[in-house]
Amino acid sequence: VTVDTVTQDVHFSLDFTPWADLGWKALAVNLSDIAAMGGTPRYALVALALPGKTEADDVLALYGGMLALAGQHGVTVVGGNVSRAPSVSLTVTVTGVLENDRNVLRRSAARPGDKIAVTGCLGGAAAGLRLLREGRQITGEADAALRQAFLRPVPRVAEGQMLARQGVAAAIDISDGLAADLGHVCRASRVSATIRAEDLPVCPGVRENFAEAATALALGGGEDYELLFTASDAVIEKVAKAAGCPVTVIGEIGEGDLGTVRVVDGSGKDIPLPEKGWEHFRSP
Amino acid sequence: VTVDTVTQDVHFSLDFTPWADLGWKALAVNLSDIAAMGGTPRYALVALALPGKTEADDVLALYGGMLALAGQHGVTVVGGNVSRAPSVSLTVTVTGVLENDRNVLRRSAARPGDKIAVTGCLGGAAAGLRLLREGRQITGEADAALRQAFLRPVPRVAEGQMLARQGVAAAIDISDGLAADLGHVCRASRVSATIRAEDLPVCPGVRENFAEAATALALGGGEDYELLFTASDAVIEKVAKAAGCPVTVIGEIGEGDLGTVRVVDGSGKDIPLPEKGWEHFRSP
Repeated sequence: VTVDTVTQDVHFSLDFTPWADLGWKALAVNLSDIAAMGGTPRYALVALALPGKTEADDVLALYGGMLALAGQHGVTVVGGNVSRAPSVSLTVTVTGVLENDRNVLRRSAARPGDKIAVTGCLGGAAAGLRLLREGRQITGEADAALRQAFLRPVPRVAEGQMLARQGVAAAIDISDGLAADLGHVCRASRVSATIRAEDLPVCPGVRENFAEAATALALGGGEDYELLFTASDAVIEKVAKAAGCPVTVIGEIGEGDLGTVRVVDGSGKDIPLPEKGWEHFRSP
Repeated sequence: VTVDTVTQDVHFSLDFTPWADLGWKALAVNLSDIAAMGGTPRYALVALALPGKTEADDVLALYGGMLALAGQHGVTVVGGNVSRAPSVSLTVTVTGVLENDRNVLRRSAARPGDKIAVTGCLGGAAAGLRLLREGRQITGEADAALRQAFLRPVPRVAEGQMLARQGVAAAIDISDGLAADLGHVCRASRVSATIRAEDLPVCPGVRENFAEAATALALGGGEDYELLFTASDAVIEKVAKAAGCPVTVIGEIGEGDLGTVRVVDGSGKDIPLPEKGWEHFRSP
């Protein structure tokens, strides 16, 4: 069972977030937490906080977006709460089940020698947020894809279940940013990690349009809702074959320096971490 | 599984709510929802929304109050979320279990001919809120008891389980106010209800200090978190013997006038409902 909140002007702005996308995303971030354990989501509870002047049509659009995603995953919204508040926020609770007690992904199960891999691509959501915030357009398919990456992230539910079945033990979803979330895994597992910057699967259009910020967006931008996992070479090979999405090895788990994450360039030199990931109480 | 939100300046004011009491109450209102079904609460998730300037000591006090109540009920706080927000709100999710599928209390199970009864006393929380808001003191024990009724409501968990075991089928907890919550039961059960105002168990000190407002506070004030239930005379007799708190019969369920709640005085004349109960989007 998991809970997550999206708050106006902290996690989203109504200036550029359609209500339907807001509903989708508020559920998606929770389904992603279930995916990160290899679970199957079942039921959702929706606690809505809304200003009194909210339009009924906007609330209907919000539920429309949420139910579109819920339908794709067989999730039923079974209850919730509504409350007046000075700004909009959605706190969604999702319950899920595991196939069995062995097939569960945990943050604490990374072991020295494991390879580190990610599903899909990175930096897309952060790049999309920049486009939305700056009212900027870029050429080609990337424009829509990056905006969608931020507004309508796709939780990796089937992929999480597959990882668990294939014998992966350690995983997390990338919400705070790759470096920050890998740090959570390293601290929980009492290991360290090294990432090769040039192996990062940066989303199409990001390097071309965000130049030297691309690596920073991929490492620290967050909200990609891809799965990061660690496993032996043999398991990752099986996973890559079974996956319906790209799976990219980006580094290794090491011993010592408990909890630390290093990022190195092609020559093995350390790259300073550009952002510290999502900090819940940083200034706006 | 249930979720409820308490929001600053909507459900509470930090001007007169200690942080420990806020933590207590945010959990209590959810335990009360489990109690209203006859369940046993198990796990809680806490989604905290806090302004960036919140003091760490205040958050510790909040959790202290919450854990004091959780400990009394064997409830474990197993997770949650923290998010920056313009004002304080707590969204608590609680999971619970039922002894078996038959022993469950529902809003939809009231039948014509059932008597309507309540646990404990009514109007205490609303009277306490008035004392707190107005900075007013009254003489005697009632002063502390009424404030406590608002700040630290006691969820009727054991009583809910007992009601279910004794064969009660219909119940609700009084959060929006007796008249409003009984209306929920009547609509869900497709019945009507008549309440005798003079039989209302108004909390000690309320009639003496709030004069003619006392009945209105008991009927519409809300937040008492007592259980309202309906059952046959025989079942209510068993319940009254088994209960560790007062149980008072206040009226009957009738046919026709689906969903309506009448309140009558000693001569059987209708009393207008003084307040419409808690309206989530009324003006502050």
